[in-house]
Amino acid sequence: MVNGIERPLDLLNNSKGKEILVHLRNDRQLVGTLLAFDIHVNIVLDNAKEVSDGEVKRSIGLTFLRGDTIVFISPASTIASEKKE
Amino acid sequence: MVNGIERPLDLLNNSKGKEILVHLRNDRQLVGTLLAFDIHVNIVLDNAKEVSDGEVKRSIGLTFLRGDTIVFISPASTIASEKKE
Amino acid sequence: MVNGIERPLDLLNNSKGKEILVHLRNDRQLVGTLLAFDIHVNIVLDNAKEVSDGEVKRSIGLTFLRGDTIVFISPASTIASEKKE
Amino acid sequence: MVNGIERPLDLLNNSKGKEILVHLRNDRQLVGTLLAFDIHVNIVLDNAKEVSDGEVKRSIGLTFLRGDTIVFISPASTIASEKKE
Amino acid sequence: MVNGIERPLDLLNNSKGKEILVHLRNDRQLVGTLLAFDIHVNIVLDNAKEVSDGEVKRSIGLTFLRGDTIVFISPASTIASEKKE
Amino acid sequence: MVNGIERPLDLLNNSKGKEILVHLRNDRQLVGTLLAFDIHVNIVLDNAKEVSDGEVKRSIGLTFLRGDTIVFISPASTIASEKKE
Amino acid sequence: MVNGIERPLDLLNNSKGKEILVHLRNDRQLVGTLLAFDIHVNIVLDNAKEVSDGEVKRSIGLTFLRGDTIVFISPASTIASEKKE
Repeated sequence: MVNGIERPLDLLNNSKGKEILVHLRNDRQLVGTLLAFDIHVNIVLDNAKEVSDGEVKRSIGLTFLRGDTIVFISPASTIASEKKE
Repeated sequence: MVNGIERPLDLLNNSKGKEILVHLRNDRQLVGTLLAFDIHVNIVLDNAKEVSDGEVKRSIGLTFLRGDTIVFISPASTIASEKKE
Repeated sequence: MVNGIERPLDLLNNSKGKEILVHLRNDRQLVGTLLAFDIHVNIVLDNAKEVSDGEVKRSIGLTFLRGDTIVFISPASTIASEKKE
Repeated sequence: MVNGIERPLDLLNNSKGKEILVHLRNDRQLVGTLLAFDIHVNIVLDNAKEVSDGEVKRSIGLTFLRGDTIVFISPASTIASEKKE
Repeated sequence: MVNGIERPLDLLNNSKGKEILVHLRNDRQLVGTLLAFDIHVNIVLDNAKEVSDGEVKRSIGLTFLRGDTIVFISPASTIASEKKE
Repeated sequence: MVNGIERPLDLLNNSKGKEILVHLRNDRQLVGTLLAFDIHVNIVLDNAKEVSDGEVKRSIGLTFLRGDTIVFISPASTIASEKKE
Repeated sequence: MVNGIERPLDLLNNSKGKEILVHLRNDRQLVGTLLAFDIHVNIVLDNAKEVSDGEVKRSIGLTFLRGDTIVFISPASTIASEKKE
């Protein structure tokens, strides 16, 4: 699963076109399909939704997220497949 | 809908002249027509309005917004069309 | 009204000598006549007044404002002319 | 009064040797005579006093102030002469 | 144990492929296997889990963590082996 | 007293080997003898003590202080000599 | 004791291999042996322990600390030898 990750941004590159979870500084969480990112970790999500405790709170569609408000980013697939062992 | 977005700022470029929603760090939200932006994500909105829970709180007209207070930006059209599926 | 705004700072350039509203990070608001600005969005206001809910709280005269405490800036004329439509 | 202010720092240059009011991020206010400043808006005040509601809280003499804690700076003379019109 | 640490990032280099504890600014703690890092201390963890008081709160799988939200990082092995002496 | 202060850092240069008061962002105050400083206003104090309301709370000896946590710095001699006039 | 400190980082250089106290922004305090540091004041501590009111709260072993979370750093020896005079 982790092949080809030599630098941190490689994970984002591998996640293009896939669903990711983004955890923000204000403890909000967004899920959406990663369309683009840059070295500042600014990202664009398609079909973004704000989620809380696994529930969708609102849909915000296509979204530009400033990198400096991001705490962590995880591919949605790896979260699902590792639910508390 | 997402054609042509290779870098994050492409979404802003595609949104020029269109209505966007801007979510700020202090959890205020503004809607307005995107007139201009730069690489710091400083933006100018025309006909800007502060909104809360879908209600207009006040109109602030033509507005310069500093990029470092912005959390995310969404084209208003994509929010409307994706209301909780 | 919005002619000639290609980059965000164009709005500030158009507003020189005119009254603007400045919203700060601590949610204070100042109005005053824009005399000067730079690329850091440091600005100088003449005849600056701190306002709250449309009331003048105190006059602070000629004022230098650091750009990194600013959230947004609006020409006072556009606020007046767009009061909730 | 505002002659010769083309760039924001011109106001500070005009205020050298004069009394200024400095409003800090933590909402403290200092008054003192401006001796020196640099492009980071670091400043040195002589005969600095912390004030609150027009009262002197304590004297702190000669003081070096880091620019990134400053919100705004006003020449004391312009505050006095513009007291709520 | 501490051989070969001349610069701070040497500790991260020595920890590649090993489990580390990451303490974030919001006082959350994550454990996971360090896959990659860069000079901004952005890191990628595999099999990341959020922990609190030694309990796993949730699994978040493969994760990209922005460096500027990190307070400290410890190899998990050194924590275990030094439990209050 | 203020001879030779053309740039803000001149005050720190004049204070080497003398006692200074350092006010930090978290409203803690330290006094100590200034041994060294750099352009980031990182400083080293000897015989540093944390003080509160004129009382010594604890001694912390030789101390390196990061510049970005500092609000203001005053030579102790000027504070004493200007006690509320 | 203070020989050879011309620049702030000289104090850290003199403290290599010795026990230091690190005070963080969130008011946590760590003690440990300084192994390495860089110009960003990122540091590596060996045998690090979180302390509070002189008590060890937990051991965290070998630790990488990001410089921008640090308020001040003191050699442990100078704290002990200067206990309120």
